[in-house]
Order: sequence, then structure tokens, then C-alpha cells
Amino acid sequence: MTTPERRFVISLGCPDRTGIVARIASFIAEWGGWIVEAGYHTDPDTGWFFTRQEVRADSLPFEVDELRTRFASVARELGDRTEWRVRDTGERRRVVVLVSREGHCLHDLLGRVASGELDVDLRAVIGNHPNLGPITEAHGVPFHHVPFPKDPAGKAEAFGRVRELVDQHDPNVVVLARFMQVLPPELCEAWAGRALNIHHSFLPSFAGARPYHQAYERGVKLIGATCHYVTAELDAGPIVEQDVIRIDHADTVPDMVRKGRDIEKLVLARGLRSHLEDRVLVHGKRTVVF
Amino acid sequence: MTTPERRFVISLGCPDRTGIVARIASFIAEWGGWIVEAGYHTDPDTGWFFTRQEVRADSLPFEVDELRTRFASVARELGDRTEWRVRDTGERRRVVVLVSREGHCLHDLLGRVASGELDVDLRAVIGNHPNLGPITEAHGVPFHHVPFPKDPAGKAEAFGRVRELVDQHDPNVVVLARFMQVLPPELCEAWAGRALNIHHSFLPSFAGARPYHQAYERGVKLIGATCHYVTAELDAGPIVEQDVIRIDHADTVPDMVRKGRDIEKLVLARGLRSHLEDRVLVHGKRTVVF
Amino acid sequence: MTTPERRFVISLGCPDRTGIVARIASFIAEWGGWIVEAGYHTDPDTGWFFTRQEVRADSLPFEVDELRTRFASVARELGDRTEWRVRDTGERRRVVVLVSREGHCLHDLLGRVASGELDVDLRAVIGNHPNLGPITEAHGVPFHHVPFPKDPAGKAEAFGRVRELVDQHDPNVVVLARFMQVLPPELCEAWAGRALNIHHSFLPSFAGARPYHQAYERGVKLIGATCHYVTAELDAGPIVEQDVIRIDHADTVPDMVRKGRDIEKLVLARGLRSHLEDRVLVHGKRTVVF
Amino acid sequence: MTTPERRFVISLGCPDRTGIVARIASFIAEWGGWIVEAGYHTDPDTGWFFTRQEVRADSLPFEVDELRTRFASVARELGDRTEWRVRDTGERRRVVVLVSREGHCLHDLLGRVASGELDVDLRAVIGNHPNLGPITEAHGVPFHHVPFPKDPAGKAEAFGRVRELVDQHDPNVVVLARFMQVLPPELCEAWAGRALNIHHSFLPSFAGARPYHQAYERGVKLIGATCHYVTAELDAGPIVEQDVIRIDHADTVPDMVRKGRDIEKLVLARGLRSHLEDRVLVHGKRTVVF
Repeated sequence: MTTPERRFVISLGCPDRTGIVARIASFIAEWGGWIVEAGYHTDPDTGWFFTRQEVRADSLPFEVDELRTRFASVARELGDRTEWRVRDTGERRRVVVLVSREGHCLHDLLGRVASGELDVDLRAVIGNHPNLGPITEAHGVPFHHVPFPKDPAGKAEAFGRVRELVDQHDPNVVVLARFMQVLPPELCEAWAGRALNIHHSFLPSFAGARPYHQAYERGVKLIGATCHYVTAELDAGPIVEQDVIRIDHADTVPDMVRKGRDIEKLVLARGLRSHLEDRVLVHGKRTVVF
Repeated sequence: MTTPERRFVISLGCPDRTGIVARIASFIAEWGGWIVEAGYHTDPDTGWFFTRQEVRADSLPFEVDELRTRFASVARELGDRTEWRVRDTGERRRVVVLVSREGHCLHDLLGRVASGELDVDLRAVIGNHPNLGPITEAHGVPFHHVPFPKDPAGKAEAFGRVRELVDQHDPNVVVLARFMQVLPPELCEAWAGRALNIHHSFLPSFAGARPYHQAYERGVKLIGATCHYVTAELDAGPIVEQDVIRIDHADTVPDMVRKGRDIEKLVLARGLRSHLEDRVLVHGKRTVVF
Repeated sequence: MTTPERRFVISLGCPDRTGIVARIASFIAEWGGWIVEAGYHTDPDTGWFFTRQEVRADSLPFEVDELRTRFASVARELGDRTEWRVRDTGERRRVVVLVSREGHCLHDLLGRVASGELDVDLRAVIGNHPNLGPITEAHGVPFHHVPFPKDPAGKAEAFGRVRELVDQHDPNVVVLARFMQVLPPELCEAWAGRALNIHHSFLPSFAGARPYHQAYERGVKLIGATCHYVTAELDAGPIVEQDVIRIDHADTVPDMVRKGRDIEKLVLARGLRSHLEDRVLVHGKRTVVF
Repeated sequence: MTTPERRFVISLGCPDRTGIVARIASFIAEWGGWIVEAGYHTDPDTGWFFTRQEVRADSLPFEVDELRTRFASVARELGDRTEWRVRDTGERRRVVVLVSREGHCLHDLLGRVASGELDVDLRAVIGNHPNLGPITEAHGVPFHHVPFPKDPAGKAEAFGRVRELVDQHDPNVVVLARFMQVLPPELCEAWAGRALNIHHSFLPSFAGARPYHQAYERGVKLIGATCHYVTAELDAGPIVEQDVIRIDHADTVPDMVRKGRDIEKLVLARGLRSHLEDRVLVHGKRTVVF
């Protein structure tokens, strides 16, 4: 893998009005910034404007902190509801993965990291079963086994332990790679906007447990997967990515489970990539994915 | 279009046991029948066996009525819950289409008939708006305008008129090509297994009214369409065909309506074709589509 | 269909350098222009910059001619290789369609025009067979039958007649909707950048004649269609849109022809829409489709 | 993973005539065989008949060897050009994988084996680069590094070493998981029908080297991958599986390489699965995949 040139990524959302593009582009041009990629979107319903810009780091005469300081005043001009961030792609992103017993999504992520495709700092994998420990460690990634008892008190304690293990890495994203445990509200809040789940159905169909069984009962002709941010309402967070695969009457539930895994892996990998590249801007229940 | 050779299509469902394939195949072989296409399926959950066979008409020494008589005794051997039918592809199928104001599905069907792809006897189109009359008639198909008042009595009367117009053709299928009116229970029953609807969502998501608006609100990344048999429970009948198309944050509801039309047309055309070729065997809420 | 608000569409390509986005955005902002949609792209290989912007017509204090005059000086600043155009969506686009005997693409286009989805001025359909005349005329569109003899002189004369019929409408696009005749070089040149062909394969596979037969021989598992601009080199012009559909061993050539039609119709309709909305910028053999 | 019940898989190809299905089905029924899945196909062009049947092992009163002996006489009745095989799913299949430096397909296969989805005896991985050794061995699979010199003699010697390493396992399939070396004719012959390659294009487009570069140059809108049996003619063997993924003008060659990997992995995994389950029957340059 060749290392891509370092870039600064500016993302911004604010109420729409004329002149925003000009204001931001002029700011960048003023300092000689070379825009490598630019996305713009206005939501006509909410009147909200979104943009994401990638600027070559070596085209600007200052570093990311100075860029943040200077861009802050541009953002202020765009109104006090403006939300923005500036990121340096030279800072590797910290990722923690939560898993249960099923390993396909974890295997997929480990393979992407090992082949250099997913260039992240994979800090830890936490599992409520021990079975995925050895392969995780063979990839040089620490694995923590946190058993989840069935009783509420024991489960709460386990979640406390998970939170501790996660938060010590201050991760840019917590990936629920088929974790199979419903996050308690306080964790949904603590990790708001950075807990990414893969659900094994084309939401909003078949939320909750055993979606492939539900799909089989209903006799659908396609099954899917959904990557979304975790919120307190189960399987109802903002959707980042979805895809489907065709099945037919000959597919049993185990066939659907097997075929579905391929879509789960792909959808999670794509959603995670979009998140890591700051391509996802959340507004209410919807996302803009540049 | 070359006319395909005439075939007899045998479809059968019965409780599974060993020897069914041998029994049916031996019957066909005994009379020198040339099997052109054969499908078999066993549902492990319900223990139900399904088959569909196409036999060249000219390979058998008798006509379809005689085949039915002879096959009836084979079917009896397979148990008294056996359901079967034998059809002669030489008999053109009668189709009636119900429409409302939106014409894209009707235009698509008329085009397929005109180009010879859909070789059916399109007996009539019935619309609760008059706007699609001229183009229907330009294709040489009778059009009936039946206005639907809002009041229950008027609506019931309109449905009575529709039923009369439909039933006089004894159609093999009644196509609800974006008809937008909920069939009353007595019509669902009268046309059970031959009223085919196209719903503009990937069911079971977004049943009922305004599915594209629902999809927009939820922020899904794919929209779809579902072709299903009409039953008394709204948008819950057995699914024959489904497909989806990718959208993104830039798509407004009108964009979704426009893109969705292409999927609606395709899904309806494919589902209708499967129905007309006797490829669909319904069992409970699920379908086998050979 | 609600009429969408009138917009001015600015498309531009020029050698990349810093400040282009700022220059264009500032020009628009200076006059209070409200950007509804904006696309930017830089080709790293050729160092070429592309943009397309939609501005609400009612947000600018002048009409399209004045916009063109004023924008010309902006474009000049960006170098003398700059190519640009400004279009008013209020001017309906003129379309002429060339067909042969097969009607599926024409039926599809007529249906889209009739349902209001494709809001164009369909000036004429020209066919080298007469069979599609009646349905064209039923849609209120003039049809011209120009027979194509096999001999070169007769064919050249026929092409002369076609050119005459086309050019009198000065169309924004000439659609070869399965026209099946290879355009002579002088027509490729005369209609450069506005003759849109649909080829029934996923190019560059199976260029030339009988692509479905070629696909069958090779045993591919997907068949496709390609919408491209016509150039003097057969089936080698810049590609606007492509798509594929899955087939399997059970599909004969006639099955592939039938299934392929659905993809041809979709790919042509999408490619045509992109062209009509000024979304396609050609650069060498490649296209940018915003 | 629950272990699926043991089955005997019968595959057969022979010249078509009436009565074949009856003959085979009667043979199975005669011994009480329970057919779990059955596929039939007749190629109208070549007049060749194909079938594949899965029979529950515990429904027959004898073992696989006896089944082979008894079925041999049925096959003989169907003519002396008949080709057939009977396999016991209880015998685990032996797999050897050849790799080069790129690891995505190997990671994917190892993950599928580790998660129990791909229930095979993965005997060895052979690489002409050493980099994939550690992860292979962490999965408990032997890895052999065989360097490939550039000179013909050295390369021939290396292929001799590869052949030795492969043949000692008598594998049911040799998977070229992005091996990047062209097999010499004698290996194509020795492994005919069981050397499975993944090519990173939608063949027949972009055969040979650097297909993503070729795709970029041509400006296609979809890229694909093809899983095929290796034959002496480069990238021209019978195709088992293909799929594509959408790209657009913003995708550079490295983007295409990255997105293409996901399709390569999927297509190889599906093709391999079909091969391992005896679903692929080759006839000339085409395959039947039940």
C-alpha cells in the first residue's frame, strides 16, 4: 500500500443560506489550500447545509491546530448552530471492537487491517465469549474476555467493565461486530455518534432478535444488513449503510445466516470506512454520507 | 418473436415422502413425455414437497384434458392433501389490469405486450381515473373508467362495478398496477391466488400509505418494491418478487418516487411473468417460485 | 408532476489549480445565487478539474444570457483551455429517436414521456422499419419511415435522409434506441457529444454484432448494457452508464435477449437523463457523470 | 455450526433423451432414497442433459461404494458418453491454496474456515512471497514459501516444487487466490477441472495483466471479478461465478483495487463453495452450476 498524502478533512453542517460555499472556498483559497475532494448537500426539508472538504495538508502554510483556530471564525460567521470538525488524516484512528461468539465480522476486520486496507490503530477486541481470543492475539491485537451473566446486576457490572476497557483507549469508534448485547442507555449516550452496530436485516424490517427467522417466516426474496449508529432506541439509530442479497425459496434459515454474513461483513466494512474518513454527518435520524 | 413450442406445465404440492419424483417422472416417461424443464423443492419446516415440470406437448400421445385425467390418478396416490394443476401453454392467458392515475406500470405492461414479450390476452384495463384511457385504447385494449367516490356506499358500489367488469373476462390474473384502492375482503376472497399487487416498498418495511415518505423519514439507503398476492390483510400477502435500488442522502421524496418507479415496473413484470408461467406455488404465507 | 423550480446549470472543465472553487462560488455568491446542487471532481491523472452547479434562476438578478456573458469572463480567468456551458432548465430539450424493428426501448421512452417523468420535447422518431409508427403517432409524436437498402449507395442515401430529418429539429440529443445501423463517420462527427447509443452488452465485452450470442458462447454469469456516446470507432465511445443482470445456465439466448431488454431500457433511460440534465462531462475516452 | 446430515451427491451429464429423470429417480426410489435436493438441466444447443441430486445417506441401505457400483449400471444404460460421479459429503474435502503477496482472498478463506462456514481440510498454503506465512500458521495451516525467480529455468523449477507440494495432498481443489503466476500447460492439464482461479475483472473484458488499469482507461462504470477453472488459454477457462460492483468517475485505480477486492473475495468464496459441493458441471467452455 502506498501511503496516501496527508490531508485535512473539514466537515460542517449549518442552516442553509447563500454564500456558504463561497465563504468556505475563499477561506481555503486565501491560504493556497488545494481541495482534493469536495461534497456539498442541502436538505430541502430541514433547510440544513452540509459540506465535507479534503485539503492537501502540504498546500496550507500551517498545521491542523492553526487550521482549526482560523476555521473557527469562519464557522462562527455561519451562525451559532453551526457544527464542524477538522481532522488530520495523519493521526491514525483508534478503534475498539466488541464481539460475541460469531467471528465472521471480526475475521473480516482483522483481514482488512492485516492487508493494509484498513489503516487504523486497532486497540483492543472485547468479547463476552473467549473463543475469538486466539485469532485476535495472533493478529497482534489485545483481547479481553468479559463474561456476561444473565442476571441484571451481573450484566450491569459486565457493561461497567466493558466501558472501562473501551474508554481507556478513547476510541474514535466502537464497533459492535455482531456483539449481540443491547447497550444500556448510559453507554449509548457516552458513545453517541461513535458506536457503530451491524444489524443483520434490512432495517426497519426485522428489528430485534432473530431477523433471519423473521425473514424466513415472511417469505421475503432478499435479505440485508444495516450499519447504524447505536442510540437508546433499539435498532433505530441513524443508518450509515445498507445492502441486500437475493435469496429464494430453497434457502433455509441456516442458508440465510450464511449468505447474510457476506452482506454483514461488507456493509459493516463500508460503514466503518465512511465513519473513519469523516464522511458521515448525522442530522436527526438521517445521515449524509459524502 | 418466434412462437415457443407448446408445452404442458404440471405443478404439484403434497406432503413429502420418498418416491414422489420417481412416481411423477415414471408417469411422464411411460408416455414418452419429453421434460424440458423440471423444478423440485422440499420445505424442511413444513415437510411439503413442490414440483413443476414442463413437458413438450408434441411428445405425449394425448391432449391436455387426457393428461389431466391420467395425472389425477397419480396425484391421488400422493395423498388427499395433494394440490395440482396442469396447464397448456397453447391457451393464451387472460389478464385484466386495474389502475389509478399513475401510469408507469401500465405503460410498461402495454409496451411488453406490444413488443410481443408478454404474450397474453389483455382483456381490459379499468381505471378509477380517466387519464390512462386514450393510451390504453391506442394499444387496442378496452378501457373502463369507474370513478371511486369517497363515501363508503359509493365506493362499495364502484367495487361492485369493477368486479362485474373483471369477472366477465374470467381472467387468469388481475393485476393491480398501482391501483391505490384497498380491495374489500369479498374481492380478496373471490380473486384469491390471482390478484397480483405491486407495493412500492420492500415489504414488510413501509406497508400502507406513502411508503417513500416513510423511507425518507427513516433515512434508508435502498428503496424497493414488492409484488405479492392480495389477501385480506393489507400488504401482507405471499410475496412473489422483490427488488431494491440504491438511493442516497441527495434523493428527495420526488427522486425516490421517480427511481422507485423503475423498480416497481421490473418487479411487477417479473412477478407477473412467474405467475403466468405457473411458476408460483403458494404455501401458507410463503411462495415457491420455480 | 409538480414543475420543479427553474434553474441555471453551469458545467465547466479546465486544468486544475487552487482557487477555482472559490472563484466560481464567489461569482455566484456575489450576485446572490442560491446553489441547489454542486459537484466537483479532479482527475489526478490528467490534472483536469470538473464542476457542475445548479443555481436557482429566481435567486439571480439577471437572465440566462446575461449569466452567460458574465460567467464567460470568469471562465476566461481559468485558462484558455476551459470548456463551459450554462443552461436554463426552463428551455425544454429537443430529442429525436432513431429506431429499427425492436420496440422495447422506444416503448419505454414513450411511456416515460407520457407519464411526465421525462419532460422533453420529443420531436420525431425515425425508423428504418415501419412497424413502430402507429404507437409513436398514438403518443402524438411524428414518425418517419426511412427504409435502409443493403447496397452502400442506397444506405448512404438513407443516412442522408435521416440526417436531414434529424437536423431540422436541431436536437439536444439523438437517441439510438436499438437503431442497429452503424452511423457513418460524418454523422458521428456532426452529432459528436449528442448521439447516445444503447449497446446490448457490458462493454468492452461483446462489442459488435450479436452480443447475447457471444455472451452465451462464453458462458458468462451476468449480461449487461452500455449507454455511450457514438464515435467513429464502433462501440468504443465514452461510456455514460452501464448495468448488468444475473443469468444462469438455464438461460437460452432468447432468455438473455428478453432479460437483457430490461437492462437496456433502464441503462438508456438513466444515461439519457444524465445527458439531458447536463450531468455528463466528457474528457477523452472517459466521462464524469455528476 | 450444526453438522448437516450426511448426504450422497450424484452428478451426471449425458446426451438428452426421454426417460432419464425417471430412470435415475426410480433407481433412488427403489432403495428408499430420500432426495433432499434435485437439479435438472438440458442444454438445447448441445442436446446435453445434466443432473445433480442430493440423497440422505441414512435413507439408503448401503454405503457410498455400493452406491457407486449400483449407480454405474444405471449410468451405462444412459449411453457410453455419460459422465458421472458420486460423492459422500461425510468425506472432508482437501484444499490447497496458492498465493502471492496480496492477502485479501487468503484472509477471507482463512476466516471462513475458522468460523466453520467452510468445512474443509485446508492442507497447505503455498506462497511465492513469505509475507502471508505467519497468519496462515496462526490458523494452524502449514505454509510453504516457494520463491519464483524471473528466469524461465528458475520459474520452471519453482513450478516443479509447487506441483510436488500440491500433489502430495491430492487436493479436491487447488485455489489460485490471486497467485499472479501463469500456470504452465502441464499443470493446467494435471489439475484440469480442479484448479480454480479468481481473476480481477468481469471476463472476457480485461483479461491478462492490470485489469483495473485497463478498466480505468476504458472508463467503465462497473468493475467485476470472475472465478473460473484454469485452462491452458489464459483467463479463458469455464466460468463458475462472476459479480460486479459499481464505481464512478471519482474512483482512482487504487480505489478500484480496494473496492474490487470485496468482489474478488465474494466471487471466489461462492465459486469455491459451488465446486466443493459438486454443483459445477463443465461442458465445453460453459458450466452448469446447480
